Amino acid sequence: MYTIGDYLLDRLSELGITEIFGVPGDYNLQFLDKIMVNKNLNWVGNANELNAAYMADGYARTRKAAALVTTFGVGELSAMNGMAGSFAENVPVVEIVGSPQSAVQDARKLVHHTLGDGEFSHFEKMHQSLTAATAHLTKENAPAEIDRVLNTLLETRKPVYLNLPIDVAESPASKPSGKLSGLTELTGEDQNLLQEIESAFSKAKQPVVMTGHELASFGLEKSIQRFIEKTNLPVTTLSLGKGVIDETTTSFIGTYSGALSDPSVQAFVDQADFLLLLGVKLSDSVTATFSQGFSEQNVIAVNVDEVRLYGKTSQNHHFEPLMKSLETLEVAPYSGDYPAKSDDSASFIPAAAPLTQKRYWQAMNAFFEPGDTLIAEQGTSYFGIAPLFLKTNTSFIGQPLWGSIGFTFPAALGSQIANPDSRHILAIGDGSLQLTVQELGVALRQKLKPIIFVLNNDGYTVERQIHGAEQAYNDIPMWHYEKLPYAFGGDSAAFKAYKVQTEKELVAAMKEARLDSDRLYWIEVVLTKMDSPEYLQKLAKLLTKQNS
Amino acid sequence: MYTIGDYLLDRLSELGITEIFGVPGDYNLQFLDKIMVNKNLNWVGNANELNAAYMADGYARTRKAAALVTTFGVGELSAMNGMAGSFAENVPVVEIVGSPQSAVQDARKLVHHTLGDGEFSHFEKMHQSLTAATAHLTKENAPAEIDRVLNTLLETRKPVYLNLPIDVAESPASKPSGKLSGLTELTGEDQNLLQEIESAFSKAKQPVVMTGHELASFGLEKSIQRFIEKTNLPVTTLSLGKGVIDETTTSFIGTYSGALSDPSVQAFVDQADFLLLLGVKLSDSVTATFSQGFSEQNVIAVNVDEVRLYGKTSQNHHFEPLMKSLETLEVAPYSGDYPAKSDDSASFIPAAAPLTQKRYWQAMNAFFEPGDTLIAEQGTSYFGIAPLFLKTNTSFIGQPLWGSIGFTFPAALGSQIANPDSRHILAIGDGSLQLTVQELGVALRQKLKPIIFVLNNDGYTVERQIHGAEQAYNDIPMWHYEKLPYAFGGDSAAFKAYKVQTEKELVAAMKEARLDSDRLYWIEVVLTKMDSPEYLQKLAKLLTKQNS
Repeated sequence: MYTIGDYLLDRLSELGITEIFGVPGDYNLQFLDKIMVNKNLNWVGNANELNAAYMADGYARTRKAAALVTTFGVGELSAMNGMAGSFAENVPVVEIVGSPQSAVQDARKLVHHTLGDGEFSHFEKMHQSLTAATAHLTKENAPAEIDRVLNTLLETRKPVYLNLPIDVAESPASKPSGKLSGLTELTGEDQNLLQEIESAFSKAKQPVVMTGHELASFGLEKSIQRFIEKTNLPVTTLSLGKGVIDETTTSFIGTYSGALSDPSVQAFVDQADFLLLLGVKLSDSVTATFSQGFSEQNVIAVNVDEVRLYGKTSQNHHFEPLMKSLETLEVAPYSGDYPAKSDDSASFIPAAAPLTQKRYWQAMNAFFEPGDTLIAEQGTSYFGIAPLFLKTNTSFIGQPLWGSIGFTFPAALGSQIANPDSRHILAIGDGSLQLTVQELGVALRQKLKPIIFVLNNDGYTVERQIHGAEQAYNDIPMWHYEKLPYAFGGDSAAFKAYKVQTEKELVAAMKEARLDSDRLYWIEVVLTKMDSPEYLQKLAKLLTKQNS
Repeated sequence: MYTIGDYLLDRLSELGITEIFGVPGDYNLQFLDKIMVNKNLNWVGNANELNAAYMADGYARTRKAAALVTTFGVGELSAMNGMAGSFAENVPVVEIVGSPQSAVQDARKLVHHTLGDGEFSHFEKMHQSLTAATAHLTKENAPAEIDRVLNTLLETRKPVYLNLPIDVAESPASKPSGKLSGLTELTGEDQNLLQEIESAFSKAKQPVVMTGHELASFGLEKSIQRFIEKTNLPVTTLSLGKGVIDETTTSFIGTYSGALSDPSVQAFVDQADFLLLLGVKLSDSVTATFSQGFSEQNVIAVNVDEVRLYGKTSQNHHFEPLMKSLETLEVAPYSGDYPAKSDDSASFIPAAAPLTQKRYWQAMNAFFEPGDTLIAEQGTSYFGIAPLFLKTNTSFIGQPLWGSIGFTFPAALGSQIANPDSRHILAIGDGSLQLTVQELGVALRQKLKPIIFVLNNDGYTVERQIHGAEQAYNDIPMWHYEKLPYAFGGDSAAFKAYKVQTEKELVAAMKEARLDSDRLYWIEVVLTKMDSPEYLQKLAKLLTKQNS
């Protein structure tokens, strides 16, 4: 019998999803049965629900949609921080919560995984502010509500939530008739906005385009790349949004970080007479605490939620069709100057000396190759990679707005599953790794082959930079990191682990990892606890000020 | 300068708290500074926030209050499942969330750890349904709001939530003048209820008292014990609430589990002509899916939230003073019969044979000693321990109502910190351990000495019993469990690890663990994946029915 559960799974396939993440629980087992027999979908069980949500987020950043299944109450609440991150950074994840039988809910029974108060709507309500749409599915409303919620995901590329009682999943349904669809038509107001943009470019002497993370949410990278290559417009990116534009593009001027930008980039952007911000969010940690020097009077900013036209905000526009139309605009090719680039990715000659943060990031920069997917944890790693020029066809994953430490380890694995052909390279610190480390068991079981650099610098160095450098609360237990892959079930066919302390040891491990794509590489990099990238040291001072 | 932060910490000390759990974040670092210099408080940093919430819950079950500190957004959302469990099972935990500067919040700035929408109240609102009280502290309202919220904790013994902006924590305050206090006075309505109870006992031929977990929340164990010993009333417990009454008490008849009780206990309870339920919740998993055979017409049930008097509900009573008054009632000592006890804790003679669940629990029963604290994970372990008669002065921790797997590992560590003198014995399965395993690093750093039995039965056996016995979603990665303590930073002074497969190996490890209280014992117990306690096999069939 074709059921509502099957209908939902077919809709997920339509979104391009081939793997589903999550944790089983007795309110979702029957629905999981349907995944097991669905020939288009594979179940990837996670160690816990927060990790599942992070892994789904990483998968969605690369595949442009993802799904996770949790159980009622205990499971969905554990996943909330992950869903909130997906919402904050516009990552399209579908959460499906298996809930008790409708009859049990209607009778307000005192069953497990509830607060014991007979109320089954608490958790669903909490998700309303973390998602673009929620639905409580019933036998009657299910196909229509599934379609409404998934269409909202396509329109907004934000996460959505479906509460699926066991019996509803098992109820009969017809197969989907039409297709899901986002908003693809331009309205009159959108046309007017495009004319404004055209007009602004025609008048501007020194325009700048800034590409943002919301473009990636919709998979618009190629369309924007064509727009930039056609016009040669100077283009920059915040580190939130890094990877949307190919950073080897002639007119790419470097990453903009407000007062912490390369001075020539900072001057060029701040002095632009017209800035077009595409899916950009100017958050504190990527603008060096709001130190951007340009004026909103020179800005047209197009976001999923709103448009800002020279300081005036409106909500009546449609992001995806607007972005797709940019390459059709009549914009005269830019023929002005660009700021000088200071790309420092020359080859790295290792010494026998102990590693420093500075030399570590030089080595990493030389190690990266075109086509890699780089994932940088929101600690020293993020600030090590953010200023670099990425090689062609590089994808980048970070989480600077939501900034939940521990996110990148499962996210890197999720993205690796979404795109097995790109070598995934994760840089993460010890403090962050400790939050979500158990997903290493899943990585080994799934035979994933990322290269993982674990910075062992004895604690929360990013926090030490902000406040409490020598306080014990910034210390963490010292693990034997190089022993983790074996403890988590790996064998020599599945992984190689190294602990490196010198430049030569690091480069030797890197070389081996690059040549061997058949194993997960786990490289513990020992650094001192107060060393950090110069960029972070400066930013930390600004964040300290913001916090006091 | 004495600050609002100091005021809050002094109030926490007043609750009997000496350790504070949590994870640092840049919105709580200045508040953590105050903990570091407070001579009555110690900071215990956790690997992640969910684990911190679980550890605080375990600490609060034993110490009757606990506190955890998280950072805004990312931290508090990760802890939500833990707070929900504390709420569902009435565990008094104070969550303190360090949030951005008031000025940053008032200006709706686009700072990290927000959803990027300028709204700072989302997460606070979500906590309203998971706590007995919440407050957003300001420089003006702080002392009064802190006292209101902590008094509510004392009245309800449920978790509470305080949002503490950085600058508010740093603002000047006066030291507390009076003391915190719960509700301790009996009202007229309470007096009437006590008379009803007295009258019911005077008429009853076969009364039964059932003690519940809410008594433990208020630390009322001794008072209730005196009431029972004075009256010799037949007393039982659900497994939710196990440990409140000393199970060696003459009139303790055994644990009641509805249709899955020992038949003589089931008949005795179901045929009682008066039942006094004290802080009891009749939830599905502890009543074998609502199979209790007694009628609400014979029940007076006193709970924190409500009283049920022969089927009629009211909310105008006060739990703590009522419970304390029971021992003053004029109740004639019970002189009737008790059901026969089937306590099966004879000594265990180990064979060289591979272990089975049945023999494992027999060995555990013989291993337990008076004064132990037993923690049973909500998998096969819970159902192995629930039917046993506990030895004198035994504490018991489980979480059968909320039922979040992974809870007990951090909770056991938290309880061990709250009561270092009691040997803590945790029984947990592999599937559950994987959710929260990283707290092993904290256990080793804090030099904790529990005895931890890790049942390696290759997956979610409790789920296999309910549905999908051979489905891959009930499989988990096979870790090398015995290698974990070393990988998480332990050395031979800190721990001993064993992997046992036979009865003899198990008993040898148990003997060594019992004699050596200077180390953490980590005992991996290998069992087959479809073996489980008989009690669970029967319950699983009932849960399957409830779910279909």
